[in-house]
Amino acid sequence: MVRLATLRDGSRDGRLAVVARAGDRYAEASTIAPTLQRALDDWDRVEPGLTELSHELESGSAASVALDPTLLLAPLPRAFEWVDASAYINHIVLVRRARGAAPPATLATDPLVYQGGSGVLLGPRDGIPLPDPAWGLDFEAELCVVLGDTPRGVQASEANRYVRLLMLANDVTFRGLVPDELAKGFGFFGSKPATAFSPFAITPDELGPAWRDGRVHLRLRSRLNGVLVGDPEAGPEMHFSFFDLIAHITKTRAFTAGTILGSGTVSNADRARGVSCLAERRMIETIESGAAQTRWLSSGDTVEIEMLDGSGWNLFGSIEQRVIAV
Amino acid sequence: MVRLATLRDGSRDGRLAVVARAGDRYAEASTIAPTLQRALDDWDRVEPGLTELSHELESGSAASVALDPTLLLAPLPRAFEWVDASAYINHIVLVRRARGAAPPATLATDPLVYQGGSGVLLGPRDGIPLPDPAWGLDFEAELCVVLGDTPRGVQASEANRYVRLLMLANDVTFRGLVPDELAKGFGFFGSKPATAFSPFAITPDELGPAWRDGRVHLRLRSRLNGVLVGDPEAGPEMHFSFFDLIAHITKTRAFTAGTILGSGTVSNADRARGVSCLAERRMIETIESGAAQTRWLSSGDTVEIEMLDGSGWNLFGSIEQRVIAV
Repeated sequence: MVRLATLRDGSRDGRLAVVARAGDRYAEASTIAPTLQRALDDWDRVEPGLTELSHELESGSAASVALDPTLLLAPLPRAFEWVDASAYINHIVLVRRARGAAPPATLATDPLVYQGGSGVLLGPRDGIPLPDPAWGLDFEAELCVVLGDTPRGVQASEANRYVRLLMLANDVTFRGLVPDELAKGFGFFGSKPATAFSPFAITPDELGPAWRDGRVHLRLRSRLNGVLVGDPEAGPEMHFSFFDLIAHITKTRAFTAGTILGSGTVSNADRARGVSCLAERRMIETIESGAAQTRWLSSGDTVEIEMLDGSGWNLFGSIEQRVIAV
Repeated sequence: MVRLATLRDGSRDGRLAVVARAGDRYAEASTIAPTLQRALDDWDRVEPGLTELSHELESGSAASVALDPTLLLAPLPRAFEWVDASAYINHIVLVRRARGAAPPATLATDPLVYQGGSGVLLGPRDGIPLPDPAWGLDFEAELCVVLGDTPRGVQASEANRYVRLLMLANDVTFRGLVPDELAKGFGFFGSKPATAFSPFAITPDELGPAWRDGRVHLRLRSRLNGVLVGDPEAGPEMHFSFFDLIAHITKTRAFTAGTILGSGTVSNADRARGVSCLAERRMIETIESGAAQTRWLSSGDTVEIEMLDGSGWNLFGSIEQRVIAV
């Protein structure tokens, strides 16, 4: 039961901290492991110390400091890989329809994943830079797992052992750049600028029974300028579970500790649950009324992403980002 | 004038060494910077010390050790990003023709790049694992640059300042997995297993006048089972220079120090220069005789990749890999 964060200290990789369940206080963990990457590099040795510090923090026996989320980096400010899937079929169907592309024939049998840029990752309160409003800035609310060392050829049935941590992500996308880029055949590149992550990376046991079958059975809530835009269930419609996705990505390759694997935009067929990105909402508007009314993000807009458990705990802390013209 | 290598020492990132011009001896550099990533993280402070050690090594005043290339890791055994372009138009045209795909309409104006996996990179003597011969294993001989911290929006005319080092790469590809993967629209993933790199990463000034206009004006030599298969000129037909590629990749994103940027398979229209991958040779055979004769790589095959300068120096050392059934 550990909740980890990375403190901004002027260094590239920040300093590791253990965070209280309430998300309001932390204890420095840098004597156990200086950074989250170093903790993941040596997880079996390091994890007991982090768990002990977490217990001490909850019991009040560890020295703690009030947590200011604006001083957090992404849990991994730079990672060795960021692999993002698209595991919610409702999202694939809507977004492909929006750009006039057919869903792949293997939609339900062969997971979609892309390799994202991982050298520059944004913290939970970092601004989203917008160089050109014509690029069509969108957010995408996702879940992700952080892997330990993961060999080639993992079966879904044994994938759980490679999951170290979970986080939320805002997979920022320039929708306007996607069609021309994908038409070239080599996948996303410039259309996916730096991804942002939640304040906390948590061990799966923090989720209790909500973590099962490689899915998180809770709602993921997104707000735009303070207004709820979606709170879909992340569990049942995740067609490929994280375990399925681990089996898929390890078919030909191994992965180093600290690899981040995303679920893709969380999406439900029930329209009452709203959306986790604006592209879906625009497509629904087009279907229902012939034209999209929702505009893409522009300077000053704010995006909030968070996930509460049944008791109201804000499990990962909140991603709260403002769009900044640059 | 520095030539760097990473010594295998049981750690994930190895230990930094400065290598003599002859490639036969090295001096440990770990008191200057423990790893190549750490050197790149703090290049302006670290580089003078590495240069001084290099001079001492050449003059015989530094303690040195005989270099065994089998004990080297990739210069960066794991990197924060591996971005691979396809800058030689002859290669794009041949390979797309081989899989029945049209070259993109923007072939000559908009560079092709894909985001590769960077968490597991192979050393110059590591075996190439082949889990399934039906996957169609191929090599691709390339040049690449290692970037320092590179902001968004770099112009080609100012890109040179972000180039720290050059290396050779063997961008291993499972050709048989490419068509189905690209048909899904998200680019390469499983069809590109771990890439291998040359023994040495060298500063651009090691190339002398052969490094100009963001291109390396030397021949890149590939051998299969000891037989020369290609020695194309890497300079003139690199349609997009490394400077053009840096401008392209920074259109929407910034990159952290240690990002590796590849040229794509080096390829000349002159068939006398041979090939830097088997897919091209198979396509040429198909054009000339109606069918491909060359088989894909199989267990026991060896691939060698190297680049000599005008005086016969083996600038990057040799990539020498054997295919290993796993």
